[in-house]
Amino acid sequence: MRRFLTHKARSLLLRTAASSTPPPYPLLPAIGFSSSSSSLLPSQYDISYLASLRSPFSSSADSMAASDSPIPLTLDTINPKVLKCEYAVRGEIVTLAQKLQQEIQENPSSHPFDEIIYCNIGNPQSLGQQPITFFREVLALCDHPAILDSSETQGLFSTDAIERAWNILDQIPGRATGAYSHSQGIKGLRDTIAASIEERDGFPADPNDIFLTDGASPAVHMMMQLLIRSEKDGILCPIPQYPLYSASIALHGGTLVPYYLDEATGWGLNISDVKKQLEAAKSKGITVRALVVINPGNPTGQVLAEDNQRALVEFCKKEGLVLLADEVYQENIYVPDKKFHSFKKISRSMGYGEKDISLVSFQSVSKGYYGECGKRGGYMEVTGFSPEIREQIYKVASVNLCSNISGQILASLVMSPPKIGDESYESYSAEKNDILSSLARRAKTLEDALNSLEGISCNKAEGAMYLFPRLHLPQKAIEAAEAAKAAPDAFYCRRLLNATGIVVVPGSGFGQVPGTWHLRCTILPQEDKIPAIVSHLTEFHEGFMDEFRD
Amino acid sequence: MRRFLTHKARSLLLRTAASSTPPPYPLLPAIGFSSSSSSLLPSQYDISYLASLRSPFSSSADSMAASDSPIPLTLDTINPKVLKCEYAVRGEIVTLAQKLQQEIQENPSSHPFDEIIYCNIGNPQSLGQQPITFFREVLALCDHPAILDSSETQGLFSTDAIERAWNILDQIPGRATGAYSHSQGIKGLRDTIAASIEERDGFPADPNDIFLTDGASPAVHMMMQLLIRSEKDGILCPIPQYPLYSASIALHGGTLVPYYLDEATGWGLNISDVKKQLEAAKSKGITVRALVVINPGNPTGQVLAEDNQRALVEFCKKEGLVLLADEVYQENIYVPDKKFHSFKKISRSMGYGEKDISLVSFQSVSKGYYGECGKRGGYMEVTGFSPEIREQIYKVASVNLCSNISGQILASLVMSPPKIGDESYESYSAEKNDILSSLARRAKTLEDALNSLEGISCNKAEGAMYLFPRLHLPQKAIEAAEAAKAAPDAFYCRRLLNATGIVVVPGSGFGQVPGTWHLRCTILPQEDKIPAIVSHLTEFHEGFMDEFRD
Repeated sequence: MRRFLTHKARSLLLRTAASSTPPPYPLLPAIGFSSSSSSLLPSQYDISYLASLRSPFSSSADSMAASDSPIPLTLDTINPKVLKCEYAVRGEIVTLAQKLQQEIQENPSSHPFDEIIYCNIGNPQSLGQQPITFFREVLALCDHPAILDSSETQGLFSTDAIERAWNILDQIPGRATGAYSHSQGIKGLRDTIAASIEERDGFPADPNDIFLTDGASPAVHMMMQLLIRSEKDGILCPIPQYPLYSASIALHGGTLVPYYLDEATGWGLNISDVKKQLEAAKSKGITVRALVVINPGNPTGQVLAEDNQRALVEFCKKEGLVLLADEVYQENIYVPDKKFHSFKKISRSMGYGEKDISLVSFQSVSKGYYGECGKRGGYMEVTGFSPEIREQIYKVASVNLCSNISGQILASLVMSPPKIGDESYESYSAEKNDILSSLARRAKTLEDALNSLEGISCNKAEGAMYLFPRLHLPQKAIEAAEAAKAAPDAFYCRRLLNATGIVVVPGSGFGQVPGTWHLRCTILPQEDKIPAIVSHLTEFHEGFMDEFRD
Repeated sequence: MRRFLTHKARSLLLRTAASSTPPPYPLLPAIGFSSSSSSLLPSQYDISYLASLRSPFSSSADSMAASDSPIPLTLDTINPKVLKCEYAVRGEIVTLAQKLQQEIQENPSSHPFDEIIYCNIGNPQSLGQQPITFFREVLALCDHPAILDSSETQGLFSTDAIERAWNILDQIPGRATGAYSHSQGIKGLRDTIAASIEERDGFPADPNDIFLTDGASPAVHMMMQLLIRSEKDGILCPIPQYPLYSASIALHGGTLVPYYLDEATGWGLNISDVKKQLEAAKSKGITVRALVVINPGNPTGQVLAEDNQRALVEFCKKEGLVLLADEVYQENIYVPDKKFHSFKKISRSMGYGEKDISLVSFQSVSKGYYGECGKRGGYMEVTGFSPEIREQIYKVASVNLCSNISGQILASLVMSPPKIGDESYESYSAEKNDILSSLARRAKTLEDALNSLEGISCNKAEGAMYLFPRLHLPQKAIEAAEAAKAAPDAFYCRRLLNATGIVVVPGSGFGQVPGTWHLRCTILPQEDKIPAIVSHLTEFHEGFMDEFRD
């Protein structure tokens, strides 16, 4: 009923609504609302814009005439940024590995090995690492809270896991683990995470600075999306780097500005080189917006010296760069003389606060001793951004509604594991220490094995999950690679895979000083497999050198 | 040891590696590899590109000189696409609601209502809907497989849930639910999903066409990213539309080309209007790449007639457009005379196969009777794309590694729920039917209530989770809104929230015929709350009309 309408007004309204051929409303370029306005203003979308008959393209309509025939969907007609993007750790070498794996399944004697050993990616549980029991207990209980009150549950789950599950459920409005959360993640979980950051660093952390995400990758994309306007915007990245950064910069159409880590000093960082690269970029018309640092390093495994960290903070502050700190390996340190210090801690300890430096720290449940890659949990801590910019980050987070709740819960658990006195503490500690000490042994064994080989030199893995040995290849091998239309390191990796089933990634996927060749190999195969890997690798390498020695 | 190197060669190599100030390698614009090459070719990244001294910007270096002083991070210097993007269902009205909620918590008598009722977003479990027991049992068991063998587990979980968990674990390499999966998702789960699509449609489905995603939103982004090159690329979208589409098109820098749903015929689709809009876009130099269709409709709730579906398929085929079919409400149909038909079924039944039409179907675990929004599970079925393009989609999926495994498992469960004869079938069926029949009743009650109000007309919700009533507002109200610098519908929604605590979204967030005003209200509050909502809404509306009646 539309009692208030006059007959005339009503028929007019109905006619408008009923019209199946509305007037030719102009097109909406990147439709949107005036998002900087703080009130519920009419948007250009449905008033000034849609109602107006001016075309946004009328001024440039003649600059491009669309063809009348359909545009076929080919590599030439898709977004060229997608085409440019590359992601070596799941690139062609992995496609080849998957093919071989299928061949082995179909015919076990088709290759000179029984299985494919995936050392291409930091995916510990795929290679047999077991999840931390306490974490999985809590996740299971939160997934099916109906069993929390049953007596059988007491027998199946530890008391503190049950308690933690109750605590977490109480933090979720309506205990609804199946509901979208706040776009930044469940507030109570962010409280827990902020408290543990505070404990870790000795400086305050604010739950409103935490954005829970489906792993670190979407968080990195979000920041690149915010910062990059065009190829004239640059992001300083270490070389070698984790290809998420190059891929994300490519997808968002920016320019990667490289700074080189120094292999000869254990992948050390030389701030004067970073400055030089910034100046070179500026002189080419690039506006550098941010600097990426990965600590502990991926693929390089070094743990940054505090001096280096301070120099980077000083540099970013002075140059007005956003510091994007990939700190996902903060729990993976294998040498007694190195410790993890977050960039937030470093900058706060230098006296720099919110107003001095824009800083984003990325953390993930996929790494550490937990290695829960499949759970897609993580967070970024965003400090030193103005409220207006924060609102924009929040808006972009909102478009995807929220990250998955299990991943959110797990992110709070890894930052706040059982404590001394909790029922699970002892078993939790044992599981954690077993994994970390075994990783340290595996890193050392593989490093030693690589360094014992002719023409290979390998820095120590102080942290993270990788070795990045350098291949000093004979000229004949380089020529053979050229003849095979492959980069020498890709040629080597492909040969290694075909001979042994071991999958490693060529250094070219990470970037390297031109004319040098590397590979990245994870330290993740289970310890009982390491001797066989070493012997297969050694045998292959000796054969390779015999074939190509100059 | 580097036995093969001569002393000279060795010192040369070491000097290169040791150099802490490498030569000024040129910058890397959107670094990447020749991704169209099928072999492990040397990439431009580290050979032709990095080694060359040509600058990619030398030709345009003079066109823009970067300032020497830092660029501040302001709304003027971030990516303007981010600024343009808007997402009304979590927009300003929700920010206001959160503020009111906090005020109520601090002072329960601060507002004339006890609670905020969020009808802004399809988030059933946040409003008290309980998850389907069987699904949660399986998820919990997959999260903590260690309990699968315990005798207590038999008492706590249904037999078929235990069996299903084993089946799923057996489909995961190494039973590792904590490992990254294949970038498209676990193969066995994709097999299950493909089989159930086949059963649903009566036409073959291929597991290799399935990409499991963290809900439908990232899948939509992935396709927009692939298709949009610049603002000259257009995407046909229904108006009104779900703002994910406008937001995603804005973020990727394209142009939304609207086609209007006809309110007078129950939000019917008129293919001649779609054609007209395409032609208008072409004449303005826009290359239209794809057409979005949402069936059942969001926010409009209609279920498309088969005739309409066929006409859209024919149109997309003829015009070479990718058909992006949002089919996340396929289980939400409340009228006996309508049925869901997937666009794939429609196109196959018209005789169109892989070579005839590029078609993407989006599905999500967030909707249906399950409403598992927090789990972030979903998939897209991608058919009719060439292998080269498919490879590009796979590559982009790979950059984020994989979607969360619990969401993947849940996506397989909702597509393959318990069957007659399974232990859980009866309780599963009862839970499902209770939810769906209650949703149908709620839709009808709210629709009737809205239609009984002066100046409101509301089409039937045949499906989905929303009503999209039209507000025929008195001129005085429109003037009051103008004075308050708000769109009339936003003005109304804000007033409603302040008076009743009910959160609905103004139609301007979805798009509407200019000069018409709407709001979107979910049908999701629990049934026992509906009478109070109706009476508060009625009371508010009568007061509003009394205040502003012309």
